[in-house]
Amino acid sequence: MRKHITGFSNPTVKYLRSLREKKHRKREGKFLAEGLRLLTDARESGRVPEVLVMAQQRDDHPLLSALENAVDSAGGEVITTGPEILGKITGKDNPQSVAGVFAEFDTSLAALDRTNANIWLVAQALRDPGNLGTMLRTGDAIGAGGLILIDDCADPFSVEAVRASMGAIFTQNIARAPWSDFHDWLREGEGQLVAASLRDAVPYRGAPYAAPCFVMVGNESQGLPEEYETSCDLRVTMPMRGRADSLNAAVAAAVLGYEVLASLDC
Amino acid sequence: MRKHITGFSNPTVKYLRSLREKKHRKREGKFLAEGLRLLTDARESGRVPEVLVMAQQRDDHPLLSALENAVDSAGGEVITTGPEILGKITGKDNPQSVAGVFAEFDTSLAALDRTNANIWLVAQALRDPGNLGTMLRTGDAIGAGGLILIDDCADPFSVEAVRASMGAIFTQNIARAPWSDFHDWLREGEGQLVAASLRDAVPYRGAPYAAPCFVMVGNESQGLPEEYETSCDLRVTMPMRGRADSLNAAVAAAVLGYEVLASLDC
Repeated sequence: MRKHITGFSNPTVKYLRSLREKKHRKREGKFLAEGLRLLTDARESGRVPEVLVMAQQRDDHPLLSALENAVDSAGGEVITTGPEILGKITGKDNPQSVAGVFAEFDTSLAALDRTNANIWLVAQALRDPGNLGTMLRTGDAIGAGGLILIDDCADPFSVEAVRASMGAIFTQNIARAPWSDFHDWLREGEGQLVAASLRDAVPYRGAPYAAPCFVMVGNESQGLPEEYETSCDLRVTMPMRGRADSLNAAVAAAVLGYEVLASLDC
Repeated sequence: MRKHITGFSNPTVKYLRSLREKKHRKREGKFLAEGLRLLTDARESGRVPEVLVMAQQRDDHPLLSALENAVDSAGGEVITTGPEILGKITGKDNPQSVAGVFAEFDTSLAALDRTNANIWLVAQALRDPGNLGTMLRTGDAIGAGGLILIDDCADPFSVEAVRASMGAIFTQNIARAPWSDFHDWLREGEGQLVAASLRDAVPYRGAPYAAPCFVMVGNESQGLPEEYETSCDLRVTMPMRGRADSLNAAVAAAVLGYEVLASLDC
């Protein structure tokens, strides 16, 4: 279906714009992704937007045509509009020339198959959507199965997280659960829970990692609750040569994740 | 000197607020840092703010008293004000209870002593101040000598970069230079320039790193220019098991930086 929109007060514009807010995403079960590159990543991963919005006057681009065709074939809606309205939807002065609306994925633990990958990333109460997106991107790079969000995390379907994921939002599994549910699920099967810690820990280099390995990082300010750390099968330390005693959460996940990858590959 | 401010139109409020913008920071040669923890990191690293602004009605805190005393001893200015004005200065609804103004540091290459550290981080045209701050934080953790900013980078003295550095802005050296100046300076002495690359590269694990090792990452969208990569003494690859062919810049610097640290420590 094709539609052209010219008015700011058009209900579709309002709907699309509303998806920048968590409560509306939650109610609708939809999220926004912006930019030709991101939407092409989505398409190539088998995820086609339900609604595609693009600038009316645009350069022809084979990837954009491919996207249009994919949306048409899937019975989705293609909307053209002017740059001002696109800017209103994306919240940017210089909007990306294209944006898409996707259905949120199933984020239940039950949907995960832990035997699909040797490494899984786990984020506990991370508040920064950019950190979540960066963890998704790192997870893609190290061949992780997905990202599990414990307790009250930022929304992985926020525009910031989707953008920082650089397309990994469409390739990584995502699950959300309270700690106790995650812990129960983890202990129902195989799985080594690992975290960086100062308590009773071994050096992260050469530690006895085992697949499937669940690499967990904690909240940006508070770190992991002590109970969560003591529930880990393996606690590791990373060198801290300076004044600080911690790394950025996404950085810690990446340094640890790459170490686990090297260890399990040997 | 002590001063109490009650009016939004006070010139000092305007001055402090202006330091949120790069052009004003550049003109004044000053920058803002917010929060008791960050300012305490600064004090303990021997950096005392020239101006300290704090909420008038505040809880007594020994670290805040220590900060006040340090500013008094250094002949600086202590300003008290209400939460609304503090919010206006910091640009936040729930402002940190304290903020400080610091003189920007010397950021010339000539001020760096490369023999001071085995690792240096180098950022080329990074546009995200959060990435710069995260690289400073990682540099502190791996015992790097500092961060060298090549070409047109985001401002390391921006509020976002200072915040993301988690205090490392006060402990890491920072230099800014165009590529040609950096290259000339580097080749005047010892130094191995390393970058992640797909061109003629060796695996990053077990690569022949040598101190002082300069770990370089490129612009978030474009990566490093080819000329810069070919100028490197060592090009390394990191596993990319997924769809993407790159990591977040600050993540790449950290994974590589920790690898260099482990290699040089052996």
